[in-house]
Amino acid sequence: MFEVLARDARTRARRGRLTTAHGPVDTPAFMPVGTHGAVRALAPEEVKACGTRMVLANTYHLYLRPGHDLIASLGGLHAFMGWDGPILTDSGGYQVFSLSPLARVTPDGAEFRSHLDGSTHLLRPESAIAIQEALGSDVMMVLDECPPFPCDLDAARASMELTLGWAERCLAARTGTRAALFGIVQGGVHHRLRAESAARTAQLGFDGLAIGGLSVGEPREIRREVLAFTAPLLPEDRPVYLMGVGLPDEIVEAVGMGVDLFDCVLPTRMARNGTLFTSQGRLNIRRAEYRDDERPLDEACDCYTCRSFSRAYLRHLFVARELLVYRLLSLHNLRHYGRLMANVRAAIDRGEFGVMVDQIRATGTAIEETFSRAEESALKP
Amino acid sequence: MFEVLARDARTRARRGRLTTAHGPVDTPAFMPVGTHGAVRALAPEEVKACGTRMVLANTYHLYLRPGHDLIASLGGLHAFMGWDGPILTDSGGYQVFSLSPLARVTPDGAEFRSHLDGSTHLLRPESAIAIQEALGSDVMMVLDECPPFPCDLDAARASMELTLGWAERCLAARTGTRAALFGIVQGGVHHRLRAESAARTAQLGFDGLAIGGLSVGEPREIRREVLAFTAPLLPEDRPVYLMGVGLPDEIVEAVGMGVDLFDCVLPTRMARNGTLFTSQGRLNIRRAEYRDDERPLDEACDCYTCRSFSRAYLRHLFVARELLVYRLLSLHNLRHYGRLMANVRAAIDRGEFGVMVDQIRATGTAIEETFSRAEESALKP
Repeated sequence: MFEVLARDARTRARRGRLTTAHGPVDTPAFMPVGTHGAVRALAPEEVKACGTRMVLANTYHLYLRPGHDLIASLGGLHAFMGWDGPILTDSGGYQVFSLSPLARVTPDGAEFRSHLDGSTHLLRPESAIAIQEALGSDVMMVLDECPPFPCDLDAARASMELTLGWAERCLAARTGTRAALFGIVQGGVHHRLRAESAARTAQLGFDGLAIGGLSVGEPREIRREVLAFTAPLLPEDRPVYLMGVGLPDEIVEAVGMGVDLFDCVLPTRMARNGTLFTSQGRLNIRRAEYRDDERPLDEACDCYTCRSFSRAYLRHLFVARELLVYRLLSLHNLRHYGRLMANVRAAIDRGEFGVMVDQIRATGTAIEETFSRAEESALKP
Repeated sequence: MFEVLARDARTRARRGRLTTAHGPVDTPAFMPVGTHGAVRALAPEEVKACGTRMVLANTYHLYLRPGHDLIASLGGLHAFMGWDGPILTDSGGYQVFSLSPLARVTPDGAEFRSHLDGSTHLLRPESAIAIQEALGSDVMMVLDECPPFPCDLDAARASMELTLGWAERCLAARTGTRAALFGIVQGGVHHRLRAESAARTAQLGFDGLAIGGLSVGEPREIRREVLAFTAPLLPEDRPVYLMGVGLPDEIVEAVGMGVDLFDCVLPTRMARNGTLFTSQGRLNIRRAEYRDDERPLDEACDCYTCRSFSRAYLRHLFVARELLVYRLLSLHNLRHYGRLMANVRAAIDRGEFGVMVDQIRATGTAIEETFSRAEESALKP
């Protein structure tokens, strides 16, 4: 299921290969998010051309619309969305608590109202697995509760226990082994809980372990510290997935801590807001300085957008709100991530990951990227 | 500049070839509309894959934003938008009167306020040509006034005289012959005026003649009748362009009256509203009946959308307002038009255009398509 092919000498970074029912995924890997069964604004062939091997699909959204039964009756999510590579599905838990009004946890599961029509639903660990199996997921996630930041020790412990109980029920609910099932380590920012959650979750025998509960509002310093503490506690022979993180430099940093898989809405969401990643740092295409700029977004990029269009044209389309531009910018950002991950893998293969980290740190552009408050709130879903 | 390659025996339909500075265009041809320098939601390579040879760009929009001087300084519109085929530009006159508040005609030109920022502008025949030349247009249009329907004889005559005066000034303003320049026949629904406008416009020596002032709210019967009267009055050796028309069956009908060139926003606009053209008639992808429909939009279509996705998936994306869907549906409708025009050309080449018209008439789906009032108002820009 998961082999480690090479290890970096200076850090915990490793090159691996995760084998799924829809083929192998070379790790470290980044998964773009396809909430509604499509990576927003992009066609499957474009997602692939960005270097993507595996995408993430949101169980919560697909369960509510169009429904997992419908997708199953049409041959599963791969056929439905025209994606023949691996798909990881989340459990829906995170979206229940972030999107749905009046969500509440009972020992049995997560009760919530649909953000679409207000109808009431109960997502149980058993149904979370049944839905993911109906979708035809390659990598399923356990139903978990993801506490917000800050969360005191008692509340974080209770939440962790709930997640552990749900994790066991998810394992028991699984009807086959075609799809991998990953456990999720919680415990907030509390080391004792993280250690306990890591040990007990690992012991349950999942195919992989995810680190959840980060990127929920905590300062980056704290996230780094919790991740650095937690990652080494996970079994060496299982893939490690850091959920919902993040910016390019944070991904590189987490690879150095031993993380193999990532997902994040940032590259596509930021693109739709006009913010692009380049080898020279970020740029916002709305800015007047690009009005007559004949250069591509990034001279170093090989994406369709950079091969075909100037910053001036992209700025014009963005200002005119022309639909084409959201695709062109999303494509570029996703290719930026694709090239980043390919470079990370190549660097580990060559034993030069430490050098890559030093270079990124030295250029100062990609590392330590942080959002201003204004930027963060502009990026809210 | 324009050669007639074949003529249909039963109708006035003809196969032709219009040679432009950016290559030949086989006619009859349909031009999709790229208002902001992009056919909405589509990349240039997709527009080409639909069978499109020439696109129309809106001078009014590009003049206001980003500005023709900017586009000229970046190498012209072809380079700016990444389109290496021919481009026809309108004069901006039609948009001045349909989009801009407080537009008014003076003998000197059309005075208007920008719909973007309220700034005041005067579009003179001379500036309309200068702007189109700056854009690098392959086929330019004269500045005209397009009267609404209904318009009484006196008003229609005054408007026609104005357009004729502006047409002469446009010819005089042209600085080279790289770009073709087309005159526009006006005259409302009045035969006497149409005949006079056709004769006097043709006499001025344009490279092609357009029939304007139709599709402005008149019933289809009247449009057909005015077109059938006007088209035969135009010089046989010049291309004939019917502006802003229309639905597939209306295009086929107009080809039979001798029209060579068409443009219309309908295929892309209707796609964004969820209405698709198929070989079996129109369908609206929002309808519940397509919820679990595994078939492509059109079994007979070879577009990327039909090769890749089911109606069920497209309906899901449309209901979820997923950005990808506007592209996929636009692509399909434009390919439908592309195949239609290829079929029209092949039928004329084979001497079977009349048979094609009979077949379309017999199936009853494509011919006589008319909009309900509700549909029409849903399609307003």
